[in-house]
Amino acid sequence: MKTYLDCLPCFLQQTLRAGRIATDDEKIIKQLLDDVGMMLKDIPLDNTPPETGMLIYQKISQITGNQDPFKKIKKENIDKALSLYPEMKKLVDKSNDKLLTAIKLAIAGNVIDFGVNREFDIEKEIAEAVNKKLVLKDYEDFKDVLCKAKEILYIGDNAGEAVFDKILIEQLKKPVVYVVRGHPVINDVTFQDAVSIGIDKLARVISSGTPAPGTILKTCNPDFIKLFKSADMVISKGQGNYEGLSGEKRPIFFLLKVKCPVIARDIGVDTSAIVLKRNGI
Amino acid sequence: MKTYLDCLPCFLQQTLRAGRIATDDEKIIKQLLDDVGMMLKDIPLDNTPPETGMLIYQKISQITGNQDPFKKIKKENIDKALSLYPEMKKLVDKSNDKLLTAIKLAIAGNVIDFGVNREFDIEKEIAEAVNKKLVLKDYEDFKDVLCKAKEILYIGDNAGEAVFDKILIEQLKKPVVYVVRGHPVINDVTFQDAVSIGIDKLARVISSGTPAPGTILKTCNPDFIKLFKSADMVISKGQGNYEGLSGEKRPIFFLLKVKCPVIARDIGVDTSAIVLKRNGI
Repeated sequence: MKTYLDCLPCFLQQTLRAGRIATDDEKIIKQLLDDVGMMLKDIPLDNTPPETGMLIYQKISQITGNQDPFKKIKKENIDKALSLYPEMKKLVDKSNDKLLTAIKLAIAGNVIDFGVNREFDIEKEIAEAVNKKLVLKDYEDFKDVLCKAKEILYIGDNAGEAVFDKILIEQLKKPVVYVVRGHPVINDVTFQDAVSIGIDKLARVISSGTPAPGTILKTCNPDFIKLFKSADMVISKGQGNYEGLSGEKRPIFFLLKVKCPVIARDIGVDTSAIVLKRNGI
Repeated sequence: MKTYLDCLPCFLQQTLRAGRIATDDEKIIKQLLDDVGMMLKDIPLDNTPPETGMLIYQKISQITGNQDPFKKIKKENIDKALSLYPEMKKLVDKSNDKLLTAIKLAIAGNVIDFGVNREFDIEKEIAEAVNKKLVLKDYEDFKDVLCKAKEILYIGDNAGEAVFDKILIEQLKKPVVYVVRGHPVINDVTFQDAVSIGIDKLARVISSGTPAPGTILKTCNPDFIKLFKSADMVISKGQGNYEGLSGEKRPIFFLLKVKCPVIARDIGVDTSAIVLKRNGI
C-alpha cells in the first residue's frame, strides 16, 4: 500500500505516542518531532507506510537511547492475552465452526496495536469479533487453499496478538512457519516473544529480518523471501503487514482489524471492520 | 496558552485539511505538508498555537495561491446560521434567563470551526447547549461586570458563529465593539462577514488587525490594543482567542466550546464542554 497524505500527520502522532513511551523528557520528544517533521519531505508517497515507520522508530531508539521502549508493555500484553487463552480455547471448542471462530479471535487480537491506537479493550474486542461477521467473503477460499497446502507461512504482527495466533495455528492442523520481526519495533512480535508464548512448540519460528513495523520484502533476509515466494499458503496478520505486502503479486490471506480510515478506504470497508481478504493472484 | 507537544501533529492535520480545501492538487498538498514539517523545528513551545497557525495558513495561501480558501464555506455557514436565527431568537425570548440562553447559543455557534474539526451538526449543538450546564460557574461574575460596564469589547471567532454572537449582543443591552480578524484566515470572521450578517447595525465593528486564527496582541493594531487594555469588559469567543489571550493579565470572559483534549486539559474540563470562564485579574 502506498503512503496516503493522511499518513503524514499520523507519522507525527505516532512519533509523539512512542516518544512518550520511550522517555519522559519533553525536550527530547520535541527534538524527535522536529526530526520527523524534517523527514517528511524525503518520504515519497510511493513508499509503503512501514518503510517510514522503520525510520521513525529507529530515530526514536537513536535519540532516546532506548532500544526497546515497548518491552514492558509487550510483557503486559502477553500476560493479559495468556490469561485469556483458556477461555478462548473454550470458545473455539464449543463453536460450530472452530476454524472460523479461531480466525475471528486471531483478528480480535490484532487490536493490540500501539502504532495506530493505544486505547483498546481486548475482552470487548473478543466478544465483538466472535459475534461479528467477517467483512470480506474469502473464507471458503481460505479453507480450499488451507486444505491443499502442505505448509503455511504465518506472518505475525503484535506480541500480545501472537497468543491469539496460537489459537488459530492449533486449528490450521498443518505444519506452520511463524514469522517474527528481526528487531524490536513498536510492540511487534520478536523471536523471544514468540518463544515466551510457546509458539515454538506448535510451529517453526523464523525471523523475516525486517526492522520495520510491517513486512517490507527489501528489508527481509533471503531465507524468508525464498519461503515467502514458494509457500503454499501465506497468512498475513495486521495493518503493518498489509501495508507492506498488499502490492505483492502472490496470493496472501490478510487477517486484520481495520484501525484507521486510510486502510479502510484502501480495502473498501468501514473503519473497525474485521477483515479476511485474499489479494489478487 | 503555550504550545503543547500534542499541537505539533495537529498542525500537520490542520495543514492537510485546509490544503484539501484550498486545492485538489495532491502534489501541492504534499509540498505544503513538507514545508510545515520543516517549520516544526522553529516553533518554540512558548509560542501560542495561533502564532503557528498564522504561519501555516499564510504558507497555504502562498503555495496554493488561494488567499481565502474558506470563502465559499464561510458563506454557506453564515447562510445556515442566518436561517436558524429566528428560531434561536424565539428560544431566547421564551426562556426564563434570556442572557444565559443567549450565552449558551453563542457558545454553541463556536462549534463552526474548521481549524480543529470539520464535522459538526449545528442544530444538534444548539439543542445540547441550551440544555447543558455551563461547566464553569462565572456567570454571576459575568452579570456583575456586565452591569457595571459602559462598553463591551466582544472578540469574535468564526464567521457563521457571528450570527450566534448577534443573539448575545442583543441581550447584553450595552454598547458593544465587535472585533474581527484583519485578514481572512480559516473560516474566521472578517469585517465583510460581520457586515453581511448585520452586526454593524448592533455594534461598532473593528478589526484587531491580526492575520492569525486567534488574538495575538503583538500582531494586532495599536487601536485595538488600546481598546483591549482599557475596555470595561472583554468577551472572547472560541479556542483561537483563548489560546492567544489566556496568558493576559486583564480580566477576560472566555466563551468557548472545547474541541480538543489539549484545551480541555489546559482549562481543566472535559473535551466538548461548553465553558464560560473568567481568567485571573
